[in-house]
Amino acid sequence: MFEATKVGRKVGKQDFKEQVTKLRTELLDTQRRLADSGVPVIVLVSGIEAAGKGEVVDRLNEWMDTRGVQTWAFWDESDEDRERPRYWRFWNAMPPRGQIGVLFGGWYQEPLERHMHGKCSDKELEAELARIEDFERMLSVDGALIVKFWFHMSEKDQKARFKKLSRDDRSRWSMMPEKAKFSEHYARFERLAERVIRETDTGIAPWYLIEAANTRYRDLAVGKTLLEAIKTRLDNPMDTSVTHTTRSPSLPNLPDAQRTLLDKLDMDKDISDDDYKRRLDELQGELNELAWAAYKAKRSTILVFEGSDAGGKGGAIRRITNAVDSRLYRTIQVAAPTDEERARHYLWRFWRHVPRAGRMTVYDRSWYGRVLVERVEGFATEAQWSRSYYEINEFEEELSEAGIIVVKFWLHITKEEQLRRFKEREVTPHKQHKITDEDWRNREKWDEYVVAVNDMINRTSTQHAPWVVIPGNDKRYARVAVLEAVTRALRKALKGK
Amino acid sequence: MFEATKVGRKVGKQDFKEQVTKLRTELLDTQRRLADSGVPVIVLVSGIEAAGKGEVVDRLNEWMDTRGVQTWAFWDESDEDRERPRYWRFWNAMPPRGQIGVLFGGWYQEPLERHMHGKCSDKELEAELARIEDFERMLSVDGALIVKFWFHMSEKDQKARFKKLSRDDRSRWSMMPEKAKFSEHYARFERLAERVIRETDTGIAPWYLIEAANTRYRDLAVGKTLLEAIKTRLDNPMDTSVTHTTRSPSLPNLPDAQRTLLDKLDMDKDISDDDYKRRLDELQGELNELAWAAYKAKRSTILVFEGSDAGGKGGAIRRITNAVDSRLYRTIQVAAPTDEERARHYLWRFWRHVPRAGRMTVYDRSWYGRVLVERVEGFATEAQWSRSYYEINEFEEELSEAGIIVVKFWLHITKEEQLRRFKEREVTPHKQHKITDEDWRNREKWDEYVVAVNDMINRTSTQHAPWVVIPGNDKRYARVAVLEAVTRALRKALKGK
Repeated sequence: MFEATKVGRKVGKQDFKEQVTKLRTELLDTQRRLADSGVPVIVLVSGIEAAGKGEVVDRLNEWMDTRGVQTWAFWDESDEDRERPRYWRFWNAMPPRGQIGVLFGGWYQEPLERHMHGKCSDKELEAELARIEDFERMLSVDGALIVKFWFHMSEKDQKARFKKLSRDDRSRWSMMPEKAKFSEHYARFERLAERVIRETDTGIAPWYLIEAANTRYRDLAVGKTLLEAIKTRLDNPMDTSVTHTTRSPSLPNLPDAQRTLLDKLDMDKDISDDDYKRRLDELQGELNELAWAAYKAKRSTILVFEGSDAGGKGGAIRRITNAVDSRLYRTIQVAAPTDEERARHYLWRFWRHVPRAGRMTVYDRSWYGRVLVERVEGFATEAQWSRSYYEINEFEEELSEAGIIVVKFWLHITKEEQLRRFKEREVTPHKQHKITDEDWRNREKWDEYVVAVNDMINRTSTQHAPWVVIPGNDKRYARVAVLEAVTRALRKALKGK
Repeated sequence: MFEATKVGRKVGKQDFKEQVTKLRTELLDTQRRLADSGVPVIVLVSGIEAAGKGEVVDRLNEWMDTRGVQTWAFWDESDEDRERPRYWRFWNAMPPRGQIGVLFGGWYQEPLERHMHGKCSDKELEAELARIEDFERMLSVDGALIVKFWFHMSEKDQKARFKKLSRDDRSRWSMMPEKAKFSEHYARFERLAERVIRETDTGIAPWYLIEAANTRYRDLAVGKTLLEAIKTRLDNPMDTSVTHTTRSPSLPNLPDAQRTLLDKLDMDKDISDDDYKRRLDELQGELNELAWAAYKAKRSTILVFEGSDAGGKGGAIRRITNAVDSRLYRTIQVAAPTDEERARHYLWRFWRHVPRAGRMTVYDRSWYGRVLVERVEGFATEAQWSRSYYEINEFEEELSEAGIIVVKFWLHITKEEQLRRFKEREVTPHKQHKITDEDWRNREKWDEYVVAVNDMINRTSTQHAPWVVIPGNDKRYARVAVLEAVTRALRKALKGK
């Protein structure tokens, strides 16, 4: 695979100068077009040791307008990184639309190092590469342009470069201080790299192999490749615009298809006054202990609350948060995204709040807005919401793999009960803020929401992140049921029972 | 001082219920008005042990619309916190305008604990309280409402509460696991608290002492106090609006007053081709080593670049960043603030980027925009920009106290040289993006900028964060001078010479 990076390509000094002048002008022009385009560009800089990845990054910063370029290295992680799912730091580094993020090594560095050090099996590497492919596809279909560079050279050239480095103080220093040295294992590393590249060289996020022995050739090749990639995308824009689609969710035209998961719920469930008080007290006491135990065990918890309007989310959440020490949880109220959020993939604003080890995050509404309100109201295109089931399952799998306990609630009420609560809200002073015209409008689409909820639960209730569907006509029954599910999940995760 | 918190105030159960209903309605109303007002509300929750601070926070979250409330605890810091100036985490927790941030302990917790543990002297405490006062004033004049609660009770009541806690599993757990126990030192802690409160009970950020023995009284008192504080502010809005002031900067009407710092610069400084190449190479090599040494020593560096338009900032910055390993620095290009930034104090967006220990942040333009472009163009009111000299000095002092090496550059060119460069930019393709109509407009205000620069350097060049003013007509001379100043500062900080 790397034959073409050992050709001995060179660029002369004078030629370089002339070409650079032209290239810079074009890069700057293209950056300006990019800024207006809404395309985020992710540039991954990888390759064999001593290929000069740092120098390439410097060059890009030199040639481009740095106002639109952000550089990220992932080599010295903080405990804020370590205590979260692995991809958290990459999400952190996502450039906003119209800008360029240059990522050192990116998501390829760790799998390469782990495999070289014998810390991961072939199977694990395989799985990781599959994850990467998913991740890159997700970013791409959302409109991102991903440009992956691999810098390579022959073993002889690499040796020569190392020799030169060791004579040159400055460059020697520029090497990582405690970096794993793979140079003694040229052949093995090359084999591994070939495999990684081959399996992740998808059409949507292609690898560009660059011969790195001659630095002028290397830098020009990078600059021109990047320029072409961006220009090509700008000249052939993807249609990622959010067109207001009005096609409503519907079920197959069969009488029995109209019966959904929600119809199977026993909506008459209730609880007596005495039982409620007793159980609430018991469960809150237990939850308090479990939350501290989770803190000590460094296990995080993510609770997701979705439900019918007026379904009792707020009340149920309060019964949780009242039980947990306020130092241990955060509640995230999902409202309209800020402009920093809007400029990125829709999952970005949820990744932001993923808790550190041992904490709990309670999401009051969540990423499921994509397949509920955004689907029903047509705020997301069908292409967008329909692919998000998969994206959401991947996201939750990553959370779960990082040891996070994920429980999701759908609090369901009947249409009649909703009407009663809406009316009650309108006449109760401290509840009036909870009822808006939007609620009434949503109510008109009750049937469409039922279909959307049915699909959502069907497609995203997984072993590692199950949906708990709760009949909520009796608020107190629902609260106890929520507390039971949360304590059960924590107990099982922490004590195995 | 605490006599009024030992009166034995109580609220009956029925009375509580009735009052809460009314209070909640009013709180919710007021929150809605608050959202439109642009006032950020900062609530500090402090007090003696076992006063139920966590319970109070729960109550506030229960009574208010949590969409506008964020709670922050500062008890389990990450290395991301530890590796930055102490106040970084408080800046992180600043609520946006129109919302409420509830801060557990806030900036009072640490000084109290340190003094109780004998880890800080009286003098140090004094200094810390003075800093707090400055900090709160800064937030207040920017429009924030700061409401500080201190929960207190008699030693007897505290003992009774501890006893009760020890019988009650759930509440026992709700105690901090490794919390410093000050209860054995009731009298000493009370004396300390009195002193802290007395010295920080300023009119702009008053303390509210709340009797905490009866939880119903405590919670109602908090709710009503907060409600009144917010209502009062909303009924008496501060004028913090940014009115476009057109008064230009000017110097005293004396002929010799027109001579500024900038006139003293020797603008003929230059460097030969050979010297430039040699020095550049030497200095970049040294800087590369120093940057790694700083990383190892966990000393951060902040470099600030300001200067005339076309003064050569970009080129000088590149000579720095080319020398430093790209894993160690970030360049922050200061452009228009995002909406998340606009919703907070103007320093917030610079605090965001303060580097972790051992890293370097290069600000291309900076917080000095406040006293330069915002002053000259009237984007900030005179009240705003004139108080910011002090705020900036405080900010930089905090950076410096945390061990960060701060160096600020003003790259100056003559008006003639600027004209030459502007024209050159207009005809050089890869430089055209650097010249805009705004540059030409700014140029018309050259004299006003000179006065603003003169004031800025005069008032903010400090021992711990000096301005280095560099004659930049010869770009290469300026680059070498910048590199010399940076290496000198790092060398001095790391090697003491």
